[in-house]
Amino acid sequence: MKDQAKRTDIKFMKEALRLAARAAGRTSPDPMVGAVLVKNGRTIGSGYHGEVTTPHAEAWAIEKAAERHGHASPRGATLYVNLEPCCFFWGKNNPPCSSTIIKAGIKRVVVAMQDPNPSVSGKGFAELKKAGIHVEVGLLEEEAKRLNEIFIKYITTGLPFVFLKSAMSLDGKIATKKGESFWISGPESRKRAHHLRNIVDAVLVGINTIVKDDPRLTVRDIKNKAKNPLKIILDPKARIPLRAKVLQIEPENAIIVVSSKAPGSKIKKIEEKMARVLKIKNNKNGFDMPALMKELGKRKITSVLVEGGGTTNSRCLEAGVVDKVAFFVAPKMIGGSKAPTPFEGGGIRKLGEAIRLKDMTTQRLGEDILIEGYILH
Amino acid sequence: MKDQAKRTDIKFMKEALRLAARAAGRTSPDPMVGAVLVKNGRTIGSGYHGEVTTPHAEAWAIEKAAERHGHASPRGATLYVNLEPCCFFWGKNNPPCSSTIIKAGIKRVVVAMQDPNPSVSGKGFAELKKAGIHVEVGLLEEEAKRLNEIFIKYITTGLPFVFLKSAMSLDGKIATKKGESFWISGPESRKRAHHLRNIVDAVLVGINTIVKDDPRLTVRDIKNKAKNPLKIILDPKARIPLRAKVLQIEPENAIIVVSSKAPGSKIKKIEEKMARVLKIKNNKNGFDMPALMKELGKRKITSVLVEGGGTTNSRCLEAGVVDKVAFFVAPKMIGGSKAPTPFEGGGIRKLGEAIRLKDMTTQRLGEDILIEGYILH
Repeated sequence: MKDQAKRTDIKFMKEALRLAARAAGRTSPDPMVGAVLVKNGRTIGSGYHGEVTTPHAEAWAIEKAAERHGHASPRGATLYVNLEPCCFFWGKNNPPCSSTIIKAGIKRVVVAMQDPNPSVSGKGFAELKKAGIHVEVGLLEEEAKRLNEIFIKYITTGLPFVFLKSAMSLDGKIATKKGESFWISGPESRKRAHHLRNIVDAVLVGINTIVKDDPRLTVRDIKNKAKNPLKIILDPKARIPLRAKVLQIEPENAIIVVSSKAPGSKIKKIEEKMARVLKIKNNKNGFDMPALMKELGKRKITSVLVEGGGTTNSRCLEAGVVDKVAFFVAPKMIGGSKAPTPFEGGGIRKLGEAIRLKDMTTQRLGEDILIEGYILH
Repeated sequence: MKDQAKRTDIKFMKEALRLAARAAGRTSPDPMVGAVLVKNGRTIGSGYHGEVTTPHAEAWAIEKAAERHGHASPRGATLYVNLEPCCFFWGKNNPPCSSTIIKAGIKRVVVAMQDPNPSVSGKGFAELKKAGIHVEVGLLEEEAKRLNEIFIKYITTGLPFVFLKSAMSLDGKIATKKGESFWISGPESRKRAHHLRNIVDAVLVGINTIVKDDPRLTVRDIKNKAKNPLKIILDPKARIPLRAKVLQIEPENAIIVVSSKAPGSKIKKIEEKMARVLKIKNNKNGFDMPALMKELGKRKITSVLVEGGGTTNSRCLEAGVVDKVAFFVAPKMIGGSKAPTPFEGGGIRKLGEAIRLKDMTTQRLGEDILIEGYILH
């Protein structure tokens, strides 16, 4: 009997997580939240936090239930939600969810994880408990934390969550020795790469990628597109061609990161294109990446996808700013001691100094294999 | 009802395949064969071809059944076997299986695959059918072909089946820039690597690996060890140190491949150690690998495991002699534009020239991921 109840709880929490994930790429800097309202074993309302300006998931679920009559009243119901309900006003559309829940007469609230925001964590629960509501925390907590990994990193550190993506052959090459890289990976992998762009606030590449490939860095070929991400170009000397696609398409979304060596006249021209220029300290190994991440965090950029070549990737990996990697491995062998690899730069001398990953997983994407993992800091 | 019968057939054929695989590494140049004898839905005998000098699997299964009495008589039973029964005498211990089957009064024979040996293929079936036995071919054929991939390649081409194995970091490095490679992969991967050595006739490395790492190239740390493989060292100038472990441990199992540039005095010393020396044509890119494989095939070496560094691997891959690759990917990043990768050499210029793989699969080995695939020729 107890097992059955647990299974039911898991079922509805999974539904809440699934709903939450629908808004991937749309809620920044907020978390993704889904809520399911259940009475007598049936869903009487559900919702998710869809955009920063829309109602919170809990309120949405309750409203849906309230629209109906009779047995669908939220009174006495159980609310499943993947994140601790808030206890603050978030603007006129969003009264605190805790008071909405209390007013609706909900009896039990099942939550996957506490709010990671240290300044409010636990306060939502306290409000609910004070009102006599039965609160349970921790169901599918790991899934919930993974879903909101961007939000958790950002809210606890003020820094963006950094993904690093690369497409390579099985023997670890990202291009031939002549630089040909289109396309190492297959269509399913490229689609997934666009999905990654869709969920982050910004994409980051080095100037060499702009000069060599002239990419658009937009989101294409996917359903349910949220937006195009910001485009961050590491360009110490402001070498970017003014006709580069990133300055032609939505130039206001481009951030050109330059050093003190960048000529003022070129900076002016870039700014005339409506792109933004950000000056960051540069040392002999390249930009001070932690300083850059701090600046991006200040600008409410909660997540960055690094799509660099071997050198930009190295800057990010060696500086320790990367949180998660996604390597698309194609069923090909390129070979060549001079062919570029996903992580170049100086590299380590001893194996004990290797950057370590945890929770490495694989999935098949067409003929390719996607390997993902988290950097151990 | 028909589905049920099919499921039963699959169950017993899987058992035959499982039994066959028990002799992995012990049957060369013969195939692995397992047989299960079933009557009234119950196994009354089973066996596998264990060593080249032991009875064939079918005879073994029938003998097991005949040892019992009454209802366990093979008369009227069904025989499941993964390879077409032979119709020739193979020495005094092995009368043709077809006649053993006929004599035993078996009614039905279910076979996974026809004998790939073009000179006997189909003849075993013909014998059985002539005797009025019901013969079915093709159940779990793909699994059966994979199980005996070494035998199939060898019997149809006279050339060894070539595996190439590498252990690398997620960013495609097989050592640090300083050459440190012990241990990139974890204990489960290393165990699997020893299992690979256990099933092949020979292991192949370049002289640089001998000089740098001085490996034993023996099978260690596994249960059910079949034997140590032969050790093939590509050593154009016969630079091998006479104190190298491969010449200290079972030197008679070492084959030193040299070119015409190798000094006769050194060759003599190697031969005095009881190791064999094989002269192969050498061109500007290194040894003529197809010629080497031909020579190995003539010596009944049916399988070779290439455990080279980036250069030996390249020789084999670029010469097109590799059939299957196994890449152990560790949850580490090494980095460095000078760190060695699993496939170096010249490499391709255009992506269209990439060596392609098919049937790429992954499996977890501890914290590592094993990626296997077949080279498309």
